[in-house]
Amino acid sequence: MAGEAGGARVAVIAVDWGTSSLRVYRLDSIGRILQSRTSDQGILNVASGQFARVLEEQIAGWNETPILMSGMVGSRQGWREAPYVQCPAGFDEIAAQLVEVRPGAWIVPGLSCRDASGVPDVMRGEEVQILGSSAEGTVCLPGTHSKWVVVENGRIERFSTFMTGEVYALLRQHSILGRMMEEGEPDAGAFADGVKRSGEGGGMLHHLFGVRTRGLMGELGGAAAASYLSGIVIGHELRAQDAREFSVLGTAELAALYQRAAALLGMNARLLDPESGVRALARLGAMLR
Amino acid sequence: MAGEAGGARVAVIAVDWGTSSLRVYRLDSIGRILQSRTSDQGILNVASGQFARVLEEQIAGWNETPILMSGMVGSRQGWREAPYVQCPAGFDEIAAQLVEVRPGAWIVPGLSCRDASGVPDVMRGEEVQILGSSAEGTVCLPGTHSKWVVVENGRIERFSTFMTGEVYALLRQHSILGRMMEEGEPDAGAFADGVKRSGEGGGMLHHLFGVRTRGLMGELGGAAAASYLSGIVIGHELRAQDAREFSVLGTAELAALYQRAAALLGMNARLLDPESGVRALARLGAMLR
Repeated sequence: MAGEAGGARVAVIAVDWGTSSLRVYRLDSIGRILQSRTSDQGILNVASGQFARVLEEQIAGWNETPILMSGMVGSRQGWREAPYVQCPAGFDEIAAQLVEVRPGAWIVPGLSCRDASGVPDVMRGEEVQILGSSAEGTVCLPGTHSKWVVVENGRIERFSTFMTGEVYALLRQHSILGRMMEEGEPDAGAFADGVKRSGEGGGMLHHLFGVRTRGLMGELGGAAAASYLSGIVIGHELRAQDAREFSVLGTAELAALYQRAAALLGMNARLLDPESGVRALARLGAMLR
Repeated sequence: MAGEAGGARVAVIAVDWGTSSLRVYRLDSIGRILQSRTSDQGILNVASGQFARVLEEQIAGWNETPILMSGMVGSRQGWREAPYVQCPAGFDEIAAQLVEVRPGAWIVPGLSCRDASGVPDVMRGEEVQILGSSAEGTVCLPGTHSKWVVVENGRIERFSTFMTGEVYALLRQHSILGRMMEEGEPDAGAFADGVKRSGEGGGMLHHLFGVRTRGLMGELGGAAAASYLSGIVIGHELRAQDAREFSVLGTAELAALYQRAAALLGMNARLLDPESGVRALARLGAMLR
């Protein structure tokens, strides 16, 4: 059921359905966005059994198929649990395990792998962003749970997750460090000090306490403290990587922070267009026909 | 003003006044506890200007002096801010900077030092525990903000703080990891797995996410997850230490966990009596006479 939007032919409806937001797109056959809508109906805001209704409302008036959905909508707390496809995986492996939740509407599976020690790792949604970007080599997707992904010949070979964004938010909102922080402009100097600090002796649990003690001693202001903390945790994340060159796929502000930290550590980070992810959903849609 | 308690002569009233609790003791001249009382009137539960009244109530009927107070009562949020004495420091340096808040009642100053990178560190209350224990060498005081202290010839040479307990509590109470955890008996095997994990590739921010993924994959139960997380953070704290032998000064349960983690890492941990701290207050009291 193809339709038209702004004169162009709609080939697929792409749905990026995460924890806190729901974005829908009408795409042409090469993944260009013809129309889009955003809502706060992330899966945490949708009652069990209401996913079909919420989607209907969000894409009202759009009658095309297929509908391709990625993100936490495929988790245990989502519409239906989709499997994790084991890495290495590319378009073929993912297309083979799409889950049809109603005629013409499909959930994209997540990916899993194991690190060198055999501990499992998972992603759900990022695989679409990565494959849509056509990136090769090491790709970093910074965020609540940052992903570091190795792509070879269009396939995701392996990846690992870092809880950087969540740990930062926890410390800022709930810890003794947060109490001394004040709202303010990001402080590039304090951020750089934090990145440098992440390589000194004592490890992260020690470096974190230094945010408090430097404040107590009058060496760090309330607004700069948040930037210093950010530099510490991002610095630890970057120093744990083997790659010296990588691409960053993230929102402008966060991607710029990672690029700055990388430069301070002698690493080379290239920024990618974070909006390119939906292209992968267009391609998966075409593979269904 | 000496008094009697249970037939023995009271030489000093010792006050351990922390963030969440207030403990008072009548001690004899060598620091033996003749009588004690505990309340939940920690400094966070005492309104500004009410410290003298709260102390009066807590030691009602005890009329001896001097009264020696240690802990967060000497912080900016306490009765009065006492200075930080710079390390190296022992009884002499501390006695020289006691702060008298009313006739015969003194607050013990905290200690400060700087690590090899020049970042400051502070303690308030632990110095009394350490000096009272007569420990030499490296002493670990596990807790919300674990302290690692080097003592030489009865003086605290230097120390560093690790936010292990607070990070654990934050992750357990507020993070995505906490959602999968269930109450249950500590799991020694899962704890040991966490300690081992802390030495594998990827660093702490990566290891933390493994708590979630191992749970998702059915490899870690909801009760074992808390022990695994505990092993990861304590393991990271221990691996950041240079010392291969140390003493532990803490509550029985936590001290035993640290001893177990140390054994797993080939380190040797000796448990000290955590109640011996008040002895230092008796000695400081004697130095006032």
